[in-house]
Amino acid sequence: MKIYDFPVGPYPARVRIALAEKKLQSRVSFALVDLRKGQHKQVEFLAKNYSGTVPVLELDDGTLIAECTAITEYLDALDGNPSLTGRTPREKGLIHMMNKRAEIELLDAISVYFHHATSGLGPDVEIYQNQEWGLRQRDKAIRAMAYFDGILQRQPFVACDYFSMADITVIAGLIFAELVKLAVPSECGTLAAWFAEMKQRPSVRDRVAMSKPAAAGG
Amino acid sequence: MKIYDFPVGPYPARVRIALAEKKLQSRVSFALVDLRKGQHKQVEFLAKNYSGTVPVLELDDGTLIAECTAITEYLDALDGNPSLTGRTPREKGLIHMMNKRAEIELLDAISVYFHHATSGLGPDVEIYQNQEWGLRQRDKAIRAMAYFDGILQRQPFVACDYFSMADITVIAGLIFAELVKLAVPSECGTLAAWFAEMKQRPSVRDRVAMSKPAAAGG
Repeated sequence: MKIYDFPVGPYPARVRIALAEKKLQSRVSFALVDLRKGQHKQVEFLAKNYSGTVPVLELDDGTLIAECTAITEYLDALDGNPSLTGRTPREKGLIHMMNKRAEIELLDAISVYFHHATSGLGPDVEIYQNQEWGLRQRDKAIRAMAYFDGILQRQPFVACDYFSMADITVIAGLIFAELVKLAVPSECGTLAAWFAEMKQRPSVRDRVAMSKPAAAGG
Repeated sequence: MKIYDFPVGPYPARVRIALAEKKLQSRVSFALVDLRKGQHKQVEFLAKNYSGTVPVLELDDGTLIAECTAITEYLDALDGNPSLTGRTPREKGLIHMMNKRAEIELLDAISVYFHHATSGLGPDVEIYQNQEWGLRQRDKAIRAMAYFDGILQRQPFVACDYFSMADITVIAGLIFAELVKLAVPSECGTLAAWFAEMKQRPSVRDRVAMSKPAAAGG
């Protein structure tokens, strides 16, 4: 398998963490898509992913799977023992709900803030910006931090009683918040402590160091 | 089970179609959330779904599951025979990718257009609008129609060789397009013909008539 991504990116982090949680690192090689050069918006890459986002997983038969949730579903199902996406109907429902909530309220909101209300990836890549929309999304993300703080005051993980895809998406949101210097509000101490603890998980800690050259794997 | 929704809504359609495909209609009652009155943005409903969207599924034990993809995952897993969300890792990956792509490129884009660049649900509900952003999302949705037209020229369904959650999301997008009078471009004849055919599926055709009073079920 081959993954097209950008090692320090928050969305790539989602799949790199999932890979490590599933102990699949050795089965994957990585190909760099340089976001700073806008390679994800160029014709060659758009043929791999219509939406122009990383990461994209390419299977050995050439099948392309984009979107972090989709890639995580694929990886989690490979061993017939899903540990990240839910085992029972109720777990599947709760994990997918909280995963999507973490996307729309936190991670995607910070991404829109970054691309629309900061210099983002630079003027050559950010050819359209809507600053007002970006600032509103920033405020939405800050509110979401308080929401997830409340959730984590009541339970150890975001969706159920074990680490799941939904936790990974909240972690990616907080990684993105750090990158754009969006501080977790001081009143969200539970969320900040939880994030500090999650950073100690090997899958989170070692995600950027995971890459090996694409030539080394299939 | 109980579903909070608004019968003619495009997002509620996703879950109603899934319910009918899974032959689960008789196990569900419906409670109306009147979007035209902004009930989905009021405190009582926000306690059920932080994001303030319909539909929301309430299980008999009180568990609340929001987000269409999450509800569909739950419903599809109930009988141990998933027919909408994928059986193999590859199917799961492709269905979730195309489901998400249909959301971000088509359905969600049209929703943003509706709420931001038209009168939407009216001035009492649409208290913030960003028209420029809404119009850009409209253009994105039109481009997505051409993309899905191309997909359907090559295969009978959006994600794989059978009807899945991804088809439901494209159908919901096209239902929303009709509601807001956003025409499928004349050059997208394959998509238009496919949508006409999908409308003949009982699950799509009868979705609005499905409701029964919440008092009649549990």
